[in-house]
Amino acid sequence: MATTIQLDAMRETGRSLLAEQVAERINQYILDHNLASGDKLPNEFELCEQLGVGRGTIREAEKILVARNILSVQRGRGTFVAEKTGEIDDPLGLSYRHDHAALARDLLEIRIQMEPWIASLAAQRADEADLERMMAQCMKVEELIRRGIDHLEEDKKFHQCIAECTHNAVVPKLIPIITFSVTLFGRLSRNSLVDETVRQHRRIAEAICAGNAEGARAAMLEHLYANKARIEAMKDEK
Amino acid sequence: MATTIQLDAMRETGRSLLAEQVAERINQYILDHNLASGDKLPNEFELCEQLGVGRGTIREAEKILVARNILSVQRGRGTFVAEKTGEIDDPLGLSYRHDHAALARDLLEIRIQMEPWIASLAAQRADEADLERMMAQCMKVEELIRRGIDHLEEDKKFHQCIAECTHNAVVPKLIPIITFSVTLFGRLSRNSLVDETVRQHRRIAEAICAGNAEGARAAMLEHLYANKARIEAMKDEK
Repeated sequence: MATTIQLDAMRETGRSLLAEQVAERINQYILDHNLASGDKLPNEFELCEQLGVGRGTIREAEKILVARNILSVQRGRGTFVAEKTGEIDDPLGLSYRHDHAALARDLLEIRIQMEPWIASLAAQRADEADLERMMAQCMKVEELIRRGIDHLEEDKKFHQCIAECTHNAVVPKLIPIITFSVTLFGRLSRNSLVDETVRQHRRIAEAICAGNAEGARAAMLEHLYANKARIEAMKDEK
Repeated sequence: MATTIQLDAMRETGRSLLAEQVAERINQYILDHNLASGDKLPNEFELCEQLGVGRGTIREAEKILVARNILSVQRGRGTFVAEKTGEIDDPLGLSYRHDHAALARDLLEIRIQMEPWIASLAAQRADEADLERMMAQCMKVEELIRRGIDHLEEDKKFHQCIAECTHNAVVPKLIPIITFSVTLFGRLSRNSLVDETVRQHRRIAEAICAGNAEGARAAMLEHLYANKARIEAMKDEK
């Protein structure tokens, strides 16, 4: 015989399942109506009517979609399609991996394959505005290094700027994934050999600015192999 | 002067912000304690005590983490770290892109860069079990094509099987992202030229089985260029 607590739990589960289904229908509504970032959703009353569920369920469903960065609720203004719809930090769940050394090795293998190609595309496709942003980011990293401030987040953004020069809309979105281990690895290596980083970044940036695709590819490859050598040296120290 | 509705909205926003903060702290708890898929979280009462918030807030926070596939609540058993922690469908929000032709072009550019390399790694690293799974998946796709059934989801899984042969844990996670447009594109092209697909898949699979890295690379490149030619032909028809 079910206890009160079990009945409570069953009611709770039923509500959650319904909210999940309604969230899926609101999501489908966004796709079917080609809604874009910043577009307003029908208000709660209209959604209740259209989907045939109560206001509490609509709110639960909206919370699920907010958690997935699909919707954003603005106090007193309504519910909107979120900026960078559906994009979340750490989309592959890499922070939940415990084998950091293996993860760093796997990611670096992908970076060595992807980023020299990205740099060569950047050299071929960057426009003036791209180059200005990239050079500014290159300087920003150098400045942090000179002042002895942790530069790793800005370092990732430099690689992101290069990816944006490709004018391929998906490539920059892959950078936060494949550079995920940079922060971890950089901290482990105590930001040593930063002069090397400055010199390598400069070479990459200058080749891209010169429209030198093969030079950009080679400079990026050198940079990543230097990282690889550092990781392997750290492993040997253990 | 704030109306009742505005006050309601403010209270609701305050609760949501608190729930988001508590969700972040529970997430940090999972990371700090190295919890893995299937591990049980402290019960609600313990979490209330540890985090100094009420049961309602804990439940709201748990719902946020369930929506992000970080937690899974099992009726009457408790709250657990979810399978494939933090991984969600369409992690880059590609379904919210409206420019399908540009998206298909960008993704294919990445596939042409990545997948021949993946096939060559697969040929070098696959073990017996990998090869068995990949060949079974290759046969499954052929069977669907022969019977005239939509094969596109299983086709993606074939590419995923190849990625698993690399023994790089991140590579297979990238496949659903870069093959995102396959379903769309395949449906547009009305599954035409499926004989070509069968022949190309076979060649890729056989090269990998033979440990022929260059052959696998070349066969995958041929397959993707054929896809590219089809997309371009479709564009010209418009």
